[in-house]
Amino acid sequence: MSKNRPLILVTNDDGILAPGIRTLIRLMKTLGEVFVVAPDSPQSGMSHAITLESMLYSEPRYIEGGDTIEYACSGTPVDCVKLAMNKLLPRKPDLCVSGINHGANSSVNVLYSGTMAAALEGAIAGVPSIGFSLLDHALDADFSQSEEYVLQITRLALENGFPKETCLNVNIPKLDNQALKGIKVCRQSHGHWEEDFDERVNPMGKTYYWLSGKFFNHDIGKDTDIWALENGYISIVPVLYDLTHHQVIDQLKSWNHE
Amino acid sequence: MSKNRPLILVTNDDGILAPGIRTLIRLMKTLGEVFVVAPDSPQSGMSHAITLESMLYSEPRYIEGGDTIEYACSGTPVDCVKLAMNKLLPRKPDLCVSGINHGANSSVNVLYSGTMAAALEGAIAGVPSIGFSLLDHALDADFSQSEEYVLQITRLALENGFPKETCLNVNIPKLDNQALKGIKVCRQSHGHWEEDFDERVNPMGKTYYWLSGKFFNHDIGKDTDIWALENGYISIVPVLYDLTHHQVIDQLKSWNHE
Repeated sequence: MSKNRPLILVTNDDGILAPGIRTLIRLMKTLGEVFVVAPDSPQSGMSHAITLESMLYSEPRYIEGGDTIEYACSGTPVDCVKLAMNKLLPRKPDLCVSGINHGANSSVNVLYSGTMAAALEGAIAGVPSIGFSLLDHALDADFSQSEEYVLQITRLALENGFPKETCLNVNIPKLDNQALKGIKVCRQSHGHWEEDFDERVNPMGKTYYWLSGKFFNHDIGKDTDIWALENGYISIVPVLYDLTHHQVIDQLKSWNHE
Repeated sequence: MSKNRPLILVTNDDGILAPGIRTLIRLMKTLGEVFVVAPDSPQSGMSHAITLESMLYSEPRYIEGGDTIEYACSGTPVDCVKLAMNKLLPRKPDLCVSGINHGANSSVNVLYSGTMAAALEGAIAGVPSIGFSLLDHALDADFSQSEEYVLQITRLALENGFPKETCLNVNIPKLDNQALKGIKVCRQSHGHWEEDFDERVNPMGKTYYWLSGKFFNHDIGKDTDIWALENGYISIVPVLYDLTHHQVIDQLKSWNHE
């Protein structure tokens, strides 16, 4: 990696044409060789889903007059990473970056997020991986103020080494650079969504629902990502794919049975 | 719960007609009032995906000559749990069970699994939740030998109390009861899949891929779910929705920046 430019896999969940990934691709090209495999359509909320009962298409394309072939894949973000790692990439990449997501992936949203699932899949494959999200859902969100920090964090990842089996969940507040206070390494805040299903009736008289809800944070810790973001910091949560609740294993020992 | 029968939400990812959930419904009816909200079609590998860009249908049905209305939902397993908790259930359930899945959800498969995502969503909503899986992918898998253990573990959950914010990932080996050695509370084994994409060409000359792969366990611990299952035990892994890699937060403190 010292002699050659690093190979960087770029993906996302908003689809290969989303402004967030176009920004990320442009930034990554200043740091290394970029290889893009991203969904051909929006895949928000797809979490760690993989495509088992259908096939995958993956079309090589030139996009936006770019000089690099990019792969638009019919699958989920995790499908994209798996296809890239096992089929399309010339070698194991030095880094996998996902995003920049249009909207927050803090707290429990890490579980629903396709952006973060792609980064987590990179980590499972043994590649340092980072998911970037900007706290702005708008399709025309302004990513310019986040560019400096995306570059800074990516450089740290490439140069400083990276904790094994970990990926980073980076969320960037929608603030201009003067208002941004800095970067904080945090833990995931405990919170949950309460859904308020919007019930409608279709022209044939059949009831249907739109999922919509409200997020509740129930964690007052100042060491959480929600606290950092609400106080003007970029949050970085190191994420591991081990979901074991280690502290309660002993508590459940009486359930063992031979 | 002592006076009244517990209210039990049953869901799965193989779809409402799968033999696994039909077994689970029958078993749960011996323990409480059962409310079924499950996908109307197979949703294996859907992980924690939620349906954001489309609407959801949820049809009340009588199935298999049953005397209870069940809801078949067009969404993912997590959509089913959200719809049940926030729209369909008369009150917060005392327990949420998911499965019995046709196939293993041990190790890193907890991340890809729709069965386990449904249980995890129950836990996030504050409901004791259990995902059950039998290590047999066959559609006509024989669930009879697992019935005794599913009942035993569910009774423990209802009677003994349950660790807060936790769900249980229960995997049952494909062994007859004489060969089953018992139950072990474990941690998630560290492992990963390597994909061997099956590349084909469609009649129009376009390349497509089928995702297929091989699981590699790289964890020799005897306290893991993979070890338990390979040695004839039912594995129970307590699962938490906090993905923070707490041990590396200090290691990354130099990344903080004000």
